Amino acid sequence: MIEYSYKTIHSLRYTKYRKVYNKFVIEGRRIVESALVCNVKISTIFCSTNFLKENKSWVQRHLNKNTIIKRIDKKTFSKICNTKSPQGILTVCDIPKQNPIKLTIDRWIYLDRISDPGNMGTLIRSCAWFGINNIALSPKCADPYNPKSIRAAMGAHFGVTIHTNTDLSIFKKTHRIIAADLRGRNASTYEFPNKCVLVLGSEAHGISCQNLGYIKNFIFINKLGSGNSLNVSTAGSILIYLLMNKLK
Amino acid sequence: MIEYSYKTIHSLRYTKYRKVYNKFVIEGRRIVESALVCNVKISTIFCSTNFLKENKSWVQRHLNKNTIIKRIDKKTFSKICNTKSPQGILTVCDIPKQNPIKLTIDRWIYLDRISDPGNMGTLIRSCAWFGINNIALSPKCADPYNPKSIRAAMGAHFGVTIHTNTDLSIFKKTHRIIAADLRGRNASTYEFPNKCVLVLGSEAHGISCQNLGYIKNFIFINKLGSGNSLNVSTAGSILIYLLMNKLK
Repeated sequence: MIEYSYKTIHSLRYTKYRKVYNKFVIEGRRIVESALVCNVKISTIFCSTNFLKENKSWVQRHLNKNTIIKRIDKKTFSKICNTKSPQGILTVCDIPKQNPIKLTIDRWIYLDRISDPGNMGTLIRSCAWFGINNIALSPKCADPYNPKSIRAAMGAHFGVTIHTNTDLSIFKKTHRIIAADLRGRNASTYEFPNKCVLVLGSEAHGISCQNLGYIKNFIFINKLGSGNSLNVSTAGSILIYLLMNKLK
Repeated sequence: MIEYSYKTIHSLRYTKYRKVYNKFVIEGRRIVESALVCNVKISTIFCSTNFLKENKSWVQRHLNKNTIIKRIDKKTFSKICNTKSPQGILTVCDIPKQNPIKLTIDRWIYLDRISDPGNMGTLIRSCAWFGINNIALSPKCADPYNPKSIRAAMGAHFGVTIHTNTDLSIFKKTHRIIAADLRGRNASTYEFPNKCVLVLGSEAHGISCQNLGYIKNFIFINKLGSGNSLNVSTAGSILIYLLMNKLK
């Protein structure tokens, strides 16, 4: 059993300390439940007195004998948590070990310098939903274990494998590399190959120059109305939907 | 010509003052450009000295004789703006007058107590992109003119008509009312009728009880992987994509 000081938990809101401890914090009933359902190793769960009072049956249903519940008062809870209106439950998880990329896996999403942690989390959630279980991140992406990413992904982190600091070039011999780009062809009629990597570029700058050379096809979602672009997590999710539903 | 004090501009970050003045603030080059392209009435544009120095050709191209440019120093600019890393350009727009709902319009999106301003803005952006030009909001939705909504919509506000405080029942005789719901049928194979309203429910509570009775069909996006749900703006955007592309 590992005990964490409140100071340590508090520090995990910063990338620097997440790297030092190799841990991240998850908050809220739904996200903690996802971790439990996925058998994530959890030793201590911190709950506010109020939470325990209001969620008796949930606690009985989900927390087994091996889980240590640490009851803390509301004030202390709000000091260590990352949300403005905390639900009163949080715990600490290990950042998963990075395994080498398996090129035998057919479908990948590659995020190229996605900088907004909310977009990062939403894309992880969409990948999990549509069954893309492998996500590769370029260097300089937002940290997928940032509290905002965790909140946006709503527990999806436990259903996917995330490879950080990945070079797109490793896919060039085995997969067709496709990128979302406003000048691309209509994704609705595009035939996705079985082995492919869908690249989504940064919110402000799109695909990075060094990656452009690896891209075989550019695709996009036809504009039927007005505007300059779609949000990257929206566009990405529509493309993931199309990719996984094999619509032609 | 109307001049705004910095104090007034600063106050417009709060719903209360947006209601008092019937104005909202837009920030950043892309959003201001959208307003100008859509011929939105703008009297004064506030620019930081830096912005004017670095964007000379943009200013020449987009700001005509009728626009008054007020040059302000970086420090003052950061005091009146809503962003942490301001681009150095902002202006004040009128909140459009509410006209009665035109039931002759075929396709509507209805947002039922969507509470996150980022989701609100992203959905407005997707509606504009796919050519759904009319959006109705239930009471108790996030304010579409909240700075976070404005930022997420990226100028899409000027391409759509937003009807706030709208009762869903007004559509019941003229339109088929469809809602996104996890227990719904597969949206990929659903045939959307020509005249319809797509209802998206609140992030935490879904469709409200009083609206459930008006809904003819529930649809959703099939889960192929894991997770409890999709983000509402992601799910909504995929459904809007399907609705407007008439995929069957």
